[in-house]
Amino acid sequence: MLPYKSLIQLKRNSAIALHIQICNNFITLITNGTLQPTGILPSSRVLADLISVNRKTVKLAYEELISQGWAESVERKGIFVFSSLPVLPEIESIPVTGDSEPKESFLWTNHFQNTHRSESYQKLILTIDDGFPDVRLTPVDQLMREYRSISKRFYGKNFLKYGDSKGSEHLRTALAFYLGNTRGLVVSPENILITKGSQMGIYLSAQLLLQSSDNIAVGVSNYASADEIFKYSGANLLRIPIDDRGMDVDHLEQMLEHKKIKAVYIIPHHHFPTTVTMSMERRLKLLKLAREYRFAIIEDDYDFDFHYNNKPYVPLASIDHNHNVIYIGSITKTFAPALRIGFMIGPSAFVEAASSLRQLIDRQGDSLLEEAFASLFENGEMERHFRKSLKIYEKRRNLFCEILQSNFSDVIAFKVPEGGLAVWAVFDDKVNLAQLSENASKQGLHILDGSFYKNEVFSPNALRMGFASLNESEIQQALEVLRRNL
Amino acid sequence: MLPYKSLIQLKRNSAIALHIQICNNFITLITNGTLQPTGILPSSRVLADLISVNRKTVKLAYEELISQGWAESVERKGIFVFSSLPVLPEIESIPVTGDSEPKESFLWTNHFQNTHRSESYQKLILTIDDGFPDVRLTPVDQLMREYRSISKRFYGKNFLKYGDSKGSEHLRTALAFYLGNTRGLVVSPENILITKGSQMGIYLSAQLLLQSSDNIAVGVSNYASADEIFKYSGANLLRIPIDDRGMDVDHLEQMLEHKKIKAVYIIPHHHFPTTVTMSMERRLKLLKLAREYRFAIIEDDYDFDFHYNNKPYVPLASIDHNHNVIYIGSITKTFAPALRIGFMIGPSAFVEAASSLRQLIDRQGDSLLEEAFASLFENGEMERHFRKSLKIYEKRRNLFCEILQSNFSDVIAFKVPEGGLAVWAVFDDKVNLAQLSENASKQGLHILDGSFYKNEVFSPNALRMGFASLNESEIQQALEVLRRNL
Repeated sequence: MLPYKSLIQLKRNSAIALHIQICNNFITLITNGTLQPTGILPSSRVLADLISVNRKTVKLAYEELISQGWAESVERKGIFVFSSLPVLPEIESIPVTGDSEPKESFLWTNHFQNTHRSESYQKLILTIDDGFPDVRLTPVDQLMREYRSISKRFYGKNFLKYGDSKGSEHLRTALAFYLGNTRGLVVSPENILITKGSQMGIYLSAQLLLQSSDNIAVGVSNYASADEIFKYSGANLLRIPIDDRGMDVDHLEQMLEHKKIKAVYIIPHHHFPTTVTMSMERRLKLLKLAREYRFAIIEDDYDFDFHYNNKPYVPLASIDHNHNVIYIGSITKTFAPALRIGFMIGPSAFVEAASSLRQLIDRQGDSLLEEAFASLFENGEMERHFRKSLKIYEKRRNLFCEILQSNFSDVIAFKVPEGGLAVWAVFDDKVNLAQLSENASKQGLHILDGSFYKNEVFSPNALRMGFASLNESEIQQALEVLRRNL
Repeated sequence: MLPYKSLIQLKRNSAIALHIQICNNFITLITNGTLQPTGILPSSRVLADLISVNRKTVKLAYEELISQGWAESVERKGIFVFSSLPVLPEIESIPVTGDSEPKESFLWTNHFQNTHRSESYQKLILTIDDGFPDVRLTPVDQLMREYRSISKRFYGKNFLKYGDSKGSEHLRTALAFYLGNTRGLVVSPENILITKGSQMGIYLSAQLLLQSSDNIAVGVSNYASADEIFKYSGANLLRIPIDDRGMDVDHLEQMLEHKKIKAVYIIPHHHFPTTVTMSMERRLKLLKLAREYRFAIIEDDYDFDFHYNNKPYVPLASIDHNHNVIYIGSITKTFAPALRIGFMIGPSAFVEAASSLRQLIDRQGDSLLEEAFASLFENGEMERHFRKSLKIYEKRRNLFCEILQSNFSDVIAFKVPEGGLAVWAVFDDKVNLAQLSENASKQGLHILDGSFYKNEVFSPNALRMGFASLNESEIQQALEVLRRNL
């Protein structure tokens, strides 16, 4: 007989019933090969004695084993491990590679070995980030109030059921109103898909627009995650220069004469990473080209709500009369990055197909959050928050840029950005950004090393320096640490 | 001069400043071709008179137009529409097709023209669904308490910042503990990716495992959305028979002798749609085959937490010693369908790659919700809720099956399911399910027509009939309506 006294480990104060624990112990012994098929189990009396439990408990455990198909009872002989269980081969000792975990033993494709990994910012203290909002300004109390109000309503719990894959109709209606008001973008709820941030809008568009070897035009500098999405769709990236008026559409026009292009991805407002705003002239010309060459414009306007000097430019989607534009926006940057509400707007058949794909990916969004956001738009809290934070961010931008101007002009070249939450800071060649990031980190300041902004044709010694998530004393503190390390 | 008095429409009581409204009106006139490039704008005095606003307001509007690049001021001559704006071609009248909206004018691929569309259940009253939980049992108040507690903590707002794409470490730790306790599944947080429902786990696995023309084995009957995901990855579906012990692994073995198979998708517990539990013998044999032929097992165990008669069977992932299993589960069915928390468990390199893909899709989950769920697991509320609802659902299953037995035995054949939230009801051939669904709907009962369960080789006259979301009087009411229509 096996040494059951030591093999069977019980926790007397566990929430799991003793007979279930005994049963699980036997399953482990069977599956790891200690107990072989047709092996006999000790009688309930013997085992009860050995492991100091009531005999009834052992009987219950054996019943469980039998009902689960692990064992069978043979009359007058006892209980045996089920004879027709296939014998699992003994576990080979697995050669230890880099890490101690054995490798998986099936075949799959890792597309992502050398891609950029996004970090968590939830545990960092002092950070010059990529251009994130200050979550201390997020009106969480108002959000909680909406949650409570919904959950107390008679029909409120219905929002916990499966909902529409396109997102809450209430939120789509509120957004249609908001987008009309702020951007002159006249759409109906059928043209809107609520997404998880602008990220999902880009992913869905790419999957529908691009087949393997299709061409998509993007900026020479570009949002690296969008580049990765397009590559993941199998597309070729054609790089178009970006200057101080945005994407060079004349260059694009020349390219179009001899290349078929399925889509053009732009961040008109403000270009990532360089913060440039695309001029109205170029916006119109791009629309004209799209009409002529029948390509889609993916307009990633995630930064629309942050424009300081004048009113922001009207989106291409608001001008478009030919349904060439897929308009992507987000509330994550204005409200809170971890509450992933964004939107994608386009021709209704396209939005319908995107919603079908979205169903395959994650079925739908969080209806409760969508309802709460709809109420925040309706009762004006959302716009009040936008206005309030815009004022605060403008002050922070001004302070940040003043300090850069007065204390860093020897090492950093930049333009005061018209909008957005970051400064595009080009460092003097003598500054090693990887080294800077490492040194700053030792002094408690988290700052990127610039690698996220580089690609195969764009390799500046530069960083986006986010000013919005820091209050005024934090800005001073962060820039002091930075200055010490230069 | 254009008839500005009628062309320019102002809302005096709008939240949008008058000068912005005037500016927007001009932009519309320019972009729709009414005002041509180089056209002159009326003097501010004239326009102010015409549309009854202060002259300063018109001046502000013109400044805005100029700063946005729509117009230029020529000294002593006036303000002109900017001369170098490209002329947009006149809008053609678009031929009206089925719907009144013009078609998009770019090329894209609609993979989803004939696929099943999921419905919203949020507005339905009396429903025999596919097997959904009763959201009236969801402990929303406890969730709200966790939300409040998090948002009041000093560091609580940090969960609004960008977080880890793999999901909250806190929740992954709590889940690892829970899965060990309930399923004997010993994993560390690094092996867990928090997903949006089990749906996202299937999508991510398929994208990593399957390339175009790869083979995946699935049941003859199967969860149709999983089939769609695999087809979307470009894979071939090989159909394996399902009997009363689950997937016929001997059939699979024969197939493996002459076909390369990348992955096998199973719902061991309980098969969708037929609610069969896979026997332990077949589970072990499938693991043996996976080891021998080096394929991945996608184990979709979304239904584990709902098993009534005995303890549920131990998952394949808990037995696996060779890292062949990708284990997918969900809390949406146990807590609330619209709060999309699920998990995918696998070898750490695979989970890492899935997390990179997930970053491209939607960056991350909702950190606040994940933290709240972690606390609900930790303080035992989650398990209390599971236990409580399991008891209620068992009663509902019993009542539902008794009524089916006594009042429907002439038209419905079924077995009492050992677990899950639905009965697999095979209807007599004389019943037309589409007609039944339509008629019932007129009498206030929503019931599916069975098309979701069919595929190219499986076409029973059958339905899943969910009993869990209805209380006892609703079950009686729903089945009465159904009976009347048979």
